[in-house]
Amino acid sequence: MDIIEKSASTPHPPYYAVIFTSLKLNNDEEYNKSSEHMLELVAQSEGFLGVESLRNDSGFEVTISYWRNLEDIKAWKNNFEHLLVQKRGRENWYKHYKVRICKVEREYDFNN
Amino acid sequence: MDIIEKSASTPHPPYYAVIFTSLKLNNDEEYNKSSEHMLELVAQSEGFLGVESLRNDSGFEVTISYWRNLEDIKAWKNNFEHLLVQKRGRENWYKHYKVRICKVEREYDFNN
Repeated sequence: MDIIEKSASTPHPPYYAVIFTSLKLNNDEEYNKSSEHMLELVAQSEGFLGVESLRNDSGFEVTISYWRNLEDIKAWKNNFEHLLVQKRGRENWYKHYKVRICKVEREYDFNN
Repeated sequence: MDIIEKSASTPHPPYYAVIFTSLKLNNDEEYNKSSEHMLELVAQSEGFLGVESLRNDSGFEVTISYWRNLEDIKAWKNNFEHLLVQKRGRENWYKHYKVRICKVEREYDFNN
């Protein structure tokens, strides 16, 4: 799958970030396909601003998605296909996950 | 170096997150040593709550550090050794970086 490998382009703060960290029980092909599909689906979601995602061979993953507001985050959480995948994740894929809902208050960057 | 590979243990919100995403020009040994030293140093910093960090072979890195409040974040940013490393990073290591200061408002987790 295409793991996103650059800083997301986001508008001036304030906006929101959802920090999702997870540890997988196993790394099966179905998980990879499902992740890919979710990234396609979330990109079409109202208020979605961007995503950054990295994982390693130990099954640890950090995915940060950026959003316009809390209502858009809630709508994505309750997206029907996404709900099915969340259920599948709890039953089959994840040993642990944590979701942090954050308001991005300030930012700065550097380009060489 | 020991890249942190699990969800950080943090207190109940509100607290703060600093999302640091970067793309490196090159992956030299000095950078790795410096990162390791900074992780040791930040862990002793007042108000530091935890860190999650992942990088890949393309030089993309996501490091999220968690903090008690904005004052503690500012104190770490202005730590003398850290300032030297930030300067070195802009001169030698980074093609790009972005820093987002966020207030963690809500969170939930799952354990299997």
